[in-house]
Amino acid sequence: MIETLDARRTSEQARDLGIYDEDGFVESAFLSRIEDLVEAENAPTLKSLVEPLHESELGDILETLDNEPRQGLVRLLGEDFDYSALTEVDEAIRLSIVGAMPNPQIAAALGELDSDDAVYILEDIEEDDRKEILAALPFRERMRLRRSLDYPEESAGRRMQTEFVAVPPYWSVGQTIDYMREDEDLPTSFAQIFVVDPMFKLIGAVELDRILRAKRLEKIDEIMHDTRHAIPAEMDQEEAAQIIEQYDLLSAAVVDRDERLVGVLTIDDVIDIVQAEAEEDIKRLGGVGDEEISDTVLTAVRSRFTWLLVNLATAILASLVIGLFDATIQHMVALAVLMPIVASMGGNAGTQTMTVAVRALASRDIDLRNAGRIIRRESLIGLVNGVLFAVIIGLVAAVWFQDAGLGQVIAIAMIVNMIAAALAGILIPLVLDNLGADPALASGTFVTTVTDVVGFFAFLGLAAWWFNL
Amino acid sequence: MIETLDARRTSEQARDLGIYDEDGFVESAFLSRIEDLVEAENAPTLKSLVEPLHESELGDILETLDNEPRQGLVRLLGEDFDYSALTEVDEAIRLSIVGAMPNPQIAAALGELDSDDAVYILEDIEEDDRKEILAALPFRERMRLRRSLDYPEESAGRRMQTEFVAVPPYWSVGQTIDYMREDEDLPTSFAQIFVVDPMFKLIGAVELDRILRAKRLEKIDEIMHDTRHAIPAEMDQEEAAQIIEQYDLLSAAVVDRDERLVGVLTIDDVIDIVQAEAEEDIKRLGGVGDEEISDTVLTAVRSRFTWLLVNLATAILASLVIGLFDATIQHMVALAVLMPIVASMGGNAGTQTMTVAVRALASRDIDLRNAGRIIRRESLIGLVNGVLFAVIIGLVAAVWFQDAGLGQVIAIAMIVNMIAAALAGILIPLVLDNLGADPALASGTFVTTVTDVVGFFAFLGLAAWWFNL
Repeated sequence: MIETLDARRTSEQARDLGIYDEDGFVESAFLSRIEDLVEAENAPTLKSLVEPLHESELGDILETLDNEPRQGLVRLLGEDFDYSALTEVDEAIRLSIVGAMPNPQIAAALGELDSDDAVYILEDIEEDDRKEILAALPFRERMRLRRSLDYPEESAGRRMQTEFVAVPPYWSVGQTIDYMREDEDLPTSFAQIFVVDPMFKLIGAVELDRILRAKRLEKIDEIMHDTRHAIPAEMDQEEAAQIIEQYDLLSAAVVDRDERLVGVLTIDDVIDIVQAEAEEDIKRLGGVGDEEISDTVLTAVRSRFTWLLVNLATAILASLVIGLFDATIQHMVALAVLMPIVASMGGNAGTQTMTVAVRALASRDIDLRNAGRIIRRESLIGLVNGVLFAVIIGLVAAVWFQDAGLGQVIAIAMIVNMIAAALAGILIPLVLDNLGADPALASGTFVTTVTDVVGFFAFLGLAAWWFNL
Repeated sequence: MIETLDARRTSEQARDLGIYDEDGFVESAFLSRIEDLVEAENAPTLKSLVEPLHESELGDILETLDNEPRQGLVRLLGEDFDYSALTEVDEAIRLSIVGAMPNPQIAAALGELDSDDAVYILEDIEEDDRKEILAALPFRERMRLRRSLDYPEESAGRRMQTEFVAVPPYWSVGQTIDYMREDEDLPTSFAQIFVVDPMFKLIGAVELDRILRAKRLEKIDEIMHDTRHAIPAEMDQEEAAQIIEQYDLLSAAVVDRDERLVGVLTIDDVIDIVQAEAEEDIKRLGGVGDEEISDTVLTAVRSRFTWLLVNLATAILASLVIGLFDATIQHMVALAVLMPIVASMGGNAGTQTMTVAVRALASRDIDLRNAGRIIRRESLIGLVNGVLFAVIIGLVAAVWFQDAGLGQVIAIAMIVNMIAAALAGILIPLVLDNLGADPALASGTFVTTVTDVVGFFAFLGLAAWWFNL
């Protein structure tokens, strides 16, 4: 929902109220005050303290509080609790708050919210409860929410707002302005109005500043423009966000299969989607899936376990490679001392290339067909850095173990592994992407498997051959 | 700049023109066609092909083309080249295009752009050239751009648009609408108007939909609201973006030190900032700094070299730890075979915790003071996964080397290292953040240093003691 600025709800007041410290964290003094008031069951003072807050401020407070005072706060606020704050908190917290409420109370609260916020809260609630809540809503609300919920998860239809202004093309600018002045059932705030035919088929749109600059007698169809960026309700939210972002739109019409206008996707939803997708990439690259900081220990253990298990398998694979050369190591323990260096440098270089590749894929700067240039570039970077670090580590090893041959062996192994790292770092994400897998999710494991195996094999194998062990 | 939808410039047409394939990449057939036309110096056909494109579409094409046809395309388009496309490409590409142009041509082009786009292009140009370009601009334009450029890099003042609508508080709604109908010098598109006193001090704002719903005789100061979210021009762009995002604003006033209105920051700029900051985090976590895929090999080698050098130092540190136990390894080569497993599992578990911590810091969900809960949570996750993997790897090692003692040693080392990984993964980002360093940039190295050193030391030290070697 696009929000009109409201004098009562401002960050400066929030600062006056002492909610945030200078680093932007929720002030601990403010939190203690809330905790004390909840403890004392002092509902009136709590209400006066929380009432001027913006939904996002209340959301921050809910996230920072421990579970008990959080539930107490919601309970004491009762009808004065601003349910849109639920759209600002992690899923686990949202579900624990909603789970503690009777369904009729949730229904009454959802009726007050914009449709996109209501859907956001409803979609995580379990089937049975959801049905009961929907049944308790007025007919029109129920139909609106059901329609949104019928669209697939993470689709534009789920994120759209179903409140919008639509007028026929033959209206004049004056008529349109008068309609907006008189109609009570308008969205809280909007940046453009839509033009539809009698069947509600979308035929155009007009930005508000265009209407303000037009003469009262001009017809809407003279000042409207085509809406070719209209978004099918089934479209994935990420794709929809990319369109709005690429064309710098303030909002876009969402249409059903018959091209009828069913909702509007606004740019502030796009920011949330962009944030969520970037967050997803970072977490997947770090091997923590979709984990949130408020997830329970059990959930986190489970989601991380899978990733660590895959890593264990690849680590054992690397150990098998080392095991091939146990006799060599026994003759020359220096190899055991130095071998992690080759593997570690390869792992890091491979991660660098992979990070660049994953980002380039996400922003569609490369794909398999035009990848030649990037592959050459990364190989060259790998070669140059490989040679530089070969010289450094070669000298270090030769001096450390007083053995020029060992220096030469590790130098060559370093070059080999740095080139392998570059190739693995670019090719693995490209192939995964081409197979339809998310390159952010799985590339890391495969890349470090390659650099470990190649690193150990090149270094130990070369040493075995060189020293005839 | 917020852009009004324009029938001529649409993604559907882009698809009709064959610019993008179904995966959203620039279609290679379209690229070849452009390359052929550039080769043939066929300016008129090129112009008709490129003219209907949106600036972001032209930007995508510029990024995908090789340097020679890219320069040729810009040269052949001449005055018809849409300079706002330069705001859509990587810095290296922007500089190479601008670098090939005479300064007067750049000046003429910048005069056509919105001030925020012009500043975006100007700020990367070298001092001398920039002065020459500014000198060639009309007085008013020059003053506007100079003022923006006087603000620090990455500040709100640099990103703001200096075109906006401002009216006095005593005007009526009707007067305001008439002014907007008649004045020619308005921004391309806008979502709110600002209210200022005779000294241009900001006193309020009104959204366009509020104006449209008001009666013509109402006074502006009756329908305006306070603008407490006004952004100081010196504020860091990231902080400004967070305010706009938190309060779901469509745009925010930018004010100078005397609280005079100097510009407006729009939500589409916020999306770009949000994207850029997420990108920065991902790249820093991956150890590639601010590298872009279009950077030269030399630039990339240099920026990655530093990171790899730090990694080399930590890898040598880990080798020194192994070196302490060379006699132990000589007696029992199985230790050399198994030791990378302990280190690798710790490294991965530490990276998981660190990823969660870095994201929680970025979204201000934790800081040093309220970190107790998170530290307990991560330690517990580390302990549980540590025990699970201790059992697995203990059994594997015992069976593999037919040595129950070895299985017990590696199991205990695994638990120790997983707990160390959890603590390092959470504490290192917290401390770095508290010292004012970017936790995304440096945490990775420190965390893997800890897990390597602890992993090798725990495993080899325990083995030396256990087997009395």
